[in-house]
Amino acid sequence: MNEDRRVGVWLVGGRGSVATTAMTGAAAVAAGLAEPTGLVTMRPPFTDAGLVGLGDLIFGGHDVVETPLAIRAARLVDDGVLPVGLPGALAGALEAAESEQRPGITGREARIEPQASLARMVSDLNAFRTRHDLGRVVVLNVSSTEAPVEPHPAHENPAALMDALDQNLAVLPPSALYALAAIETGCAYVDFTPSVGARLPAIEALAEAHEVPLAGSDGKTGETFMKSALAPAFAARALKVRSWSGMNLLGGGDGAALADPARAQSKLDSKGRLLEEILGYPVEAPIYIQDVRDMGEWKTAWDHVVFEGFLGIRMKLQFTWEGCDSALAAPLILDLIRLAALALERGESGVLTNLAFFFKDPAGTREHQLHRQYEMLERWVLQKVAA
Amino acid sequence: MNEDRRVGVWLVGGRGSVATTAMTGAAAVAAGLAEPTGLVTMRPPFTDAGLVGLGDLIFGGHDVVETPLAIRAARLVDDGVLPVGLPGALAGALEAAESEQRPGITGREARIEPQASLARMVSDLNAFRTRHDLGRVVVLNVSSTEAPVEPHPAHENPAALMDALDQNLAVLPPSALYALAAIETGCAYVDFTPSVGARLPAIEALAEAHEVPLAGSDGKTGETFMKSALAPAFAARALKVRSWSGMNLLGGGDGAALADPARAQSKLDSKGRLLEEILGYPVEAPIYIQDVRDMGEWKTAWDHVVFEGFLGIRMKLQFTWEGCDSALAAPLILDLIRLAALALERGESGVLTNLAFFFKDPAGTREHQLHRQYEMLERWVLQKVAA
Amino acid sequence: MNEDRRVGVWLVGGRGSVATTAMTGAAAVAAGLAEPTGLVTMRPPFTDAGLVGLGDLIFGGHDVVETPLAIRAARLVDDGVLPVGLPGALAGALEAAESEQRPGITGREARIEPQASLARMVSDLNAFRTRHDLGRVVVLNVSSTEAPVEPHPAHENPAALMDALDQNLAVLPPSALYALAAIETGCAYVDFTPSVGARLPAIEALAEAHEVPLAGSDGKTGETFMKSALAPAFAARALKVRSWSGMNLLGGGDGAALADPARAQSKLDSKGRLLEEILGYPVEAPIYIQDVRDMGEWKTAWDHVVFEGFLGIRMKLQFTWEGCDSALAAPLILDLIRLAALALERGESGVLTNLAFFFKDPAGTREHQLHRQYEMLERWVLQKVAA
Amino acid sequence: MNEDRRVGVWLVGGRGSVATTAMTGAAAVAAGLAEPTGLVTMRPPFTDAGLVGLGDLIFGGHDVVETPLAIRAARLVDDGVLPVGLPGALAGALEAAESEQRPGITGREARIEPQASLARMVSDLNAFRTRHDLGRVVVLNVSSTEAPVEPHPAHENPAALMDALDQNLAVLPPSALYALAAIETGCAYVDFTPSVGARLPAIEALAEAHEVPLAGSDGKTGETFMKSALAPAFAARALKVRSWSGMNLLGGGDGAALADPARAQSKLDSKGRLLEEILGYPVEAPIYIQDVRDMGEWKTAWDHVVFEGFLGIRMKLQFTWEGCDSALAAPLILDLIRLAALALERGESGVLTNLAFFFKDPAGTREHQLHRQYEMLERWVLQKVAA
Ligand SMILES: NC(=O)c1ccc[n+]([C@@H]2O[C@H](COP(=O)([O-])OP(=O)(O)OC[C@H]3O[C@@H](n4cnc5c(N)ncnc54)[C@H](O)[C@@H]3O)[C@@H](O)[C@H]2O)c1
Ligand SMILES: NC(=O)c1ccc[n+]([C@@H]2O[C@H](COP(=O)([O-])OP(=O)(O)OC[C@H]3O[C@@H](n4cnc5c(N)ncnc54)[C@H](O)[C@@H]3O)[C@@H](O)[C@H]2O)c1
Ligand SMILES: NC(=O)c1ccc[n+]([C@@H]2O[C@H](COP(=O)([O-])OP(=O)(O)OC[C@H]3O[C@@H](n4cnc5c(N)ncnc54)[C@H](O)[C@@H]3O)[C@@H](O)[C@H]2O)c1
Ligand SMILES: NC(=O)c1ccc[n+]([C@@H]2O[C@H](COP(=O)([O-])OP(=O)(O)OC[C@H]3O[C@@H](n4cnc5c(N)ncnc54)[C@H](O)[C@@H]3O)[C@@H](O)[C@H]2O)c1
Ligand code: NA
Ligand code: NA
Repeated sequence: MNEDRRVGVWLVGGRGSVATTAMTGAAAVAAGLAEPTGLVTMRPPFTDAGLVGLGDLIFGGHDVVETPLAIRAARLVDDGVLPVGLPGALAGALEAAESEQRPGITGREARIEPQASLARMVSDLNAFRTRHDLGRVVVLNVSSTEAPVEPHPAHENPAALMDALDQNLAVLPPSALYALAAIETGCAYVDFTPSVGARLPAIEALAEAHEVPLAGSDGKTGETFMKSALAPAFAARALKVRSWSGMNLLGGGDGAALADPARAQSKLDSKGRLLEEILGYPVEAPIYIQDVRDMGEWKTAWDHVVFEGFLGIRMKLQFTWEGCDSALAAPLILDLIRLAALALERGESGVLTNLAFFFKDPAGTREHQLHRQYEMLERWVLQKVAA
Repeated sequence: MNEDRRVGVWLVGGRGSVATTAMTGAAAVAAGLAEPTGLVTMRPPFTDAGLVGLGDLIFGGHDVVETPLAIRAARLVDDGVLPVGLPGALAGALEAAESEQRPGITGREARIEPQASLARMVSDLNAFRTRHDLGRVVVLNVSSTEAPVEPHPAHENPAALMDALDQNLAVLPPSALYALAAIETGCAYVDFTPSVGARLPAIEALAEAHEVPLAGSDGKTGETFMKSALAPAFAARALKVRSWSGMNLLGGGDGAALADPARAQSKLDSKGRLLEEILGYPVEAPIYIQDVRDMGEWKTAWDHVVFEGFLGIRMKLQFTWEGCDSALAAPLILDLIRLAALALERGESGVLTNLAFFFKDPAGTREHQLHRQYEMLERWVLQKVAA
Repeated sequence: MNEDRRVGVWLVGGRGSVATTAMTGAAAVAAGLAEPTGLVTMRPPFTDAGLVGLGDLIFGGHDVVETPLAIRAARLVDDGVLPVGLPGALAGALEAAESEQRPGITGREARIEPQASLARMVSDLNAFRTRHDLGRVVVLNVSSTEAPVEPHPAHENPAALMDALDQNLAVLPPSALYALAAIETGCAYVDFTPSVGARLPAIEALAEAHEVPLAGSDGKTGETFMKSALAPAFAARALKVRSWSGMNLLGGGDGAALADPARAQSKLDSKGRLLEEILGYPVEAPIYIQDVRDMGEWKTAWDHVVFEGFLGIRMKLQFTWEGCDSALAAPLILDLIRLAALALERGESGVLTNLAFFFKDPAGTREHQLHRQYEMLERWVLQKVAA
Repeated sequence: MNEDRRVGVWLVGGRGSVATTAMTGAAAVAAGLAEPTGLVTMRPPFTDAGLVGLGDLIFGGHDVVETPLAIRAARLVDDGVLPVGLPGALAGALEAAESEQRPGITGREARIEPQASLARMVSDLNAFRTRHDLGRVVVLNVSSTEAPVEPHPAHENPAALMDALDQNLAVLPPSALYALAAIETGCAYVDFTPSVGARLPAIEALAEAHEVPLAGSDGKTGETFMKSALAPAFAARALKVRSWSGMNLLGGGDGAALADPARAQSKLDSKGRLLEEILGYPVEAPIYIQDVRDMGEWKTAWDHVVFEGFLGIRMKLQFTWEGCDSALAAPLILDLIRLAALALERGESGVLTNLAFFFKDPAGTREHQLHRQYEMLERWVLQKVAA
């Protein structure tokens, strides 16, 4: 496998903001048109880890809309996410990725014909691998956040799940069908969204059985990233957090999706667990997401933290975080692809808990402190290199 | 020495806000009238380290004003620093500390009669130790920040320094004379201010010679504390900080002292070094301190951070920190006393680099990342216990 | 009537934060123990308008809880709303008000026995007037915000309404029954809450018929106050507001009441109309209220305003408003009492549109610009004096 | 004169950010390529006042650098001030303005050869007027802020001033020489900067004598604009402002100029007078300007306002204003040109106090309340139309 450094990357939600930014950015950095700012794995100590080069990634993907990538990229320029002129300069790369986009699974299809949908995904992934003669393929979900799924007995074990699918029962949302397709075709599966994806006992068991690595979930890019850096500081100083309120204004496709309260719930769940885990006591910590269409691809989070110091005195930290979500997410996507490809190369399977650094709701661990997560990541990447 | 758990604490600036809050708070926590919030050493894993109890501290101090502690405490109640009724409930403890306050060295005395001033301090410290039959005494500087000192050849080695003092040359500010007195009488010396204190080669050498421990300098309580928690997060994520501007509004005695640009300079110097150390590249990072008398004991810092993410996109973090400086500083003072007493007990001497966690400008180390400093502290306290 | 300057004040929600703060504060200012800060009518040009003195107000009220005013005031001291020691110094005034508190109408009573409840209120008000031999009485609603009422045909005219009450139909919430009682007994009725109160065609007609003045609704104390000052500035400068998002964190009784989405709706409705009225075009302007119990009597509002300037460039204003709601509301309550008493003295009846300055949702006018509302107030108070 | 609607506009600092943005924007709006957002005089009621059309402005100017306008405009595109593609689309207009740029007066020239410098300016202005056969010419200063001038007896009356210039004494900075040149050639003179310009008794007297109108000074675009909108709201509500601290971060040419403390002083002086005028009592109101080169054309102001409400309770308003200074200033420049041209048309001379709305330090009036200033403006523009 070492002879072939190329890695296939299959993005679910391949025509979305994050996906388009990630593909354009990978090409730009590979071509020397941009610095690798925001890419964790392009800095020491990770530069020595032999990770796949950005120029060796072959992109494809599933989506349920058909907006050409060139149009999507042009809109991202208008919204200030991509530099003026960049998509034009990388037209070849965008065309190549365009030719590898395939129709994904709609919510309706997942309910009505799950079996056929899954088969179609499996066939798309196999064809992609064959067409490009790829050893390693990483499937990464950056499609719109789904509503939480209803619990169902078929979620509990592989046999029951396969049975339910054979009967065409509507037990899985698209994200889980994509995860299954990845597993069946020997691809790594990474979930950057809070959707269910691979996070069901039945699917985790299948991943172990097929010996593919999994990682997730929900990319940590803004307010939660800040929380995971700041809450440990309060803990270290024995300052007692009394309330930590987080109000988020966001637009874009993501803002619209999260305006649906059911979907927002997925997101809030994955954001909410962290403070108590870090601080060791329950905190009044409301989180709210407001869609503000006019904000486009930008987001402002305001956090209001009341804490108690010596002799019970109340003090306050407030912050605002004004970020471009896709610009924050895209380099992490590329990091995750490189790291998942490393896991494939090493033959690791099951949940990659050492990737917690990237996620709001890290699978397989309760470690939420950013610096500890970074240390986990370093150890995982480097120890194996050493070995 | 283990028989006598009592520790003498000599506060330079003993009638100031921080000193008064620390003494009142120690008595309150010892009496069970308040929780030890903000006290790092009263939480695991430090609770098992056998540190001196707050009730076993005997307080005294030097100051250049004569405002009775009871009056100072009453003002701190008015300003919302101390809970209503608390000084009254602890009148005994405040009276005891009052009876141990002595006139300190004014700037004028340091210039005109340094030799005699030093001798007076030495005699005060010896008398304090004898009066209470104390094994261990910690001298801690919480007096007003001094202007930076002019470099002088006598600063370079002990002999030259002693010589200069013998000739009554004005080569040392009060903080350094206090440090010398501590060293000569076998006390630990901790500098919570950015004043020069023990930070001259000649004085550090004397501390080694007298085998006393030193720690400093400049307590890290607000904006810098935040920086040392947040800058590592930017670094870990490969986000490039373009500018980090910090504007500080503060009142109180400290605000007035820092309204003097020369003194503010001491403070700004000790705040400025950190970002580049953590991030590894120079950052445009202006810091400004504004005295706003009306703010009393309160402080608001506003930080405006512009950073660059993927493909050069500019994003922003802003925070405001609304703190009561004395409430933030006082528990750290008590932590430092307990830890310096531990160093005395262990017979450690010279600069205690492992106390970097507490300081803006940690002596003897360039480690500014809060979580690494915390780990250094843990290792230092616990490894020795284990041994 | 001029001989008797005394005015009766009947507070619905008489044991709440706002009511208790208003009564304590009136006594404090009257006794010279506090400045009249925040009282609009105690500054020129209103000082010459011959308004009733704060010492000439006789307080009473209805509430559905029985917490003694002394206890409520003590809690307000703990929460930093009232100065330490003040309730003690004014014990006499609080006792006098305590002896005039009567059980109000619960939601259940309003549904089950509206007729009897109304009669009880009428009798309480008449007794109060007689007991103190009062010429003028002002009823002011500062009770918890109610959920919006279901429309009902009986709301449209007095006859239908009286008919429905005769049949004991559940067509009115408590606030409206209080308004009816005020009208029937010749009292002015002011609504400081967004509850329905007198804002039904049937009740407004009855007020006209009984020749009593009405004012409301929903006191303008924080975010909306800021909006009514700032939005006119954007308009004057031809800057186009693209979005104005307002996130509110509040605790206290009010926070808890507004945690009920139905009640919050009343509040949001009355806040939402203003921007479009001032700017002249629709604006994306979400408002959200979050209960944060830990914040007690304090509130922080964060507003995030994106506006467009020359050549379409996007710019931003953000503000946080950290206020104590009861401290902001109480002086306005006293202003409104004095002004309603003036209306009674002048024999004005119906909706007092010139009091728009005080309200989020001013009855009888669409004028939301703060400075215009101030001018309306000035003209109304002074022109009549001149006449 | 009515036959010729064209107006000559001579910008001092004609190659700066504000000037370039104003010229480009005027052409863009005239050509229908942009909305007149931010232009006060393009909205009712000013649309009926018969003001000169933006397409009828002929631009020229003085500067001490020679950067071509096309290059300056391209940089403003990079900095996000001008839309991508706009300067290209308006190349003709920029070339026309380029051909009318002339070398201005450097500080050195103003000291060494004031007489000759003044003559050169006069000749440039006369030539401009003749070349384009212009009835009305407005000179508007948007050059870098100068340091405050030393008082000199020659400033007091025209004769003394002329005398001093005849002797080539260094008594006037460039801005004042430009003002003199404007006056001598019958042009209106508007000062958008805090430099001395026409604000000397001698120069004001000369303007009266030559019957030319003057306006100034220091464009009100950001923090001060906010203050003039907000401070009246505090006053109207009888809330007592205790401190109002304003910290400004700015880059660009202006940031660099103001990094010079002497020049910053001019700016701070003109910002500082306002609060006391509006509130009627002195307020602790520090203002600070920090150059942050990395911020380019953008500015962030943070204001921290502590106010006192009922019973002395302390509350807080904080705001951040993130603006693009040139985008805020440019439309005001165009408004001022149109209004100064109106004054010329009407034959008004001396200080135009009714333009206070546009200035931090309005000449000839102490009215700082934004809404009152707007009313003054409306009355001035419209009453004359009516007449
Ligand atoms: N940007 C961040 O900082 C960040 C952080 C954490 C998580 N996320 C998550 O990443 C995801 C993508 O965000 P985005 O900003 O690119 O959103 P987006 O709306 O721009 O893109 C989502 C794409 O998914 C497609 N899609 C929807 N349903 C699909 C389906 N069933 N199958 C295949 N494709 C489907 C959409 O058509 C769209 O093209 C979201 O779920 C978001 O919550 C983003
Ligand atoms: N509070 C914090 O968060 C914090 C953080 C870092 C450093 N510090 C430093 O701690 C020190 C104390 O702060 P504070 O708020 O208590 O100030 P303060 O003004 O209330 O107290 C300082 C005291 O030092 C006394 N003093 C002045 N010169 C002296 C001298 N020559 N000898 C002895 N005493 C002298 C003063 O009379 C005063 O009583 C300051 O230097 C401050 O910069 C405080
Ligand atoms: N404080 C402000 O800035 C502000 C501004 C606008 C409106 N308001 C409104 O003022 C009202 C009072 O606010 P608060 O902070 O004093 O709340 P609070 O909860 O402290 O007091 C409300 C009081 O009303 C009583 N009450 C509830 N139902 C009642 C009924 N049916 N009859 C009589 N009394 C009843 C409660 O028992 C309580 O004592 C709220 O409706 C609030 O929305 C307040
Ligand atoms: N932009 C705003 O919001 C705002 C508000 C109020 C005042 N102002 C003032 O407007 C002025 C222009 O601001 P800017 O951002 O365009 O600055 P800038 O630095 O971009 O432009 C100033 C121009 O003036 C030129 N100049 C310097 N000295 C000169 C002289 N003696 N004669 C002729 N030209 C000279 C410079 O070469 C430069 O081209 C500044 O004084 C600023 O303080 C701007
Ligand atoms: Na998005
Ligand atoms: Na309340």
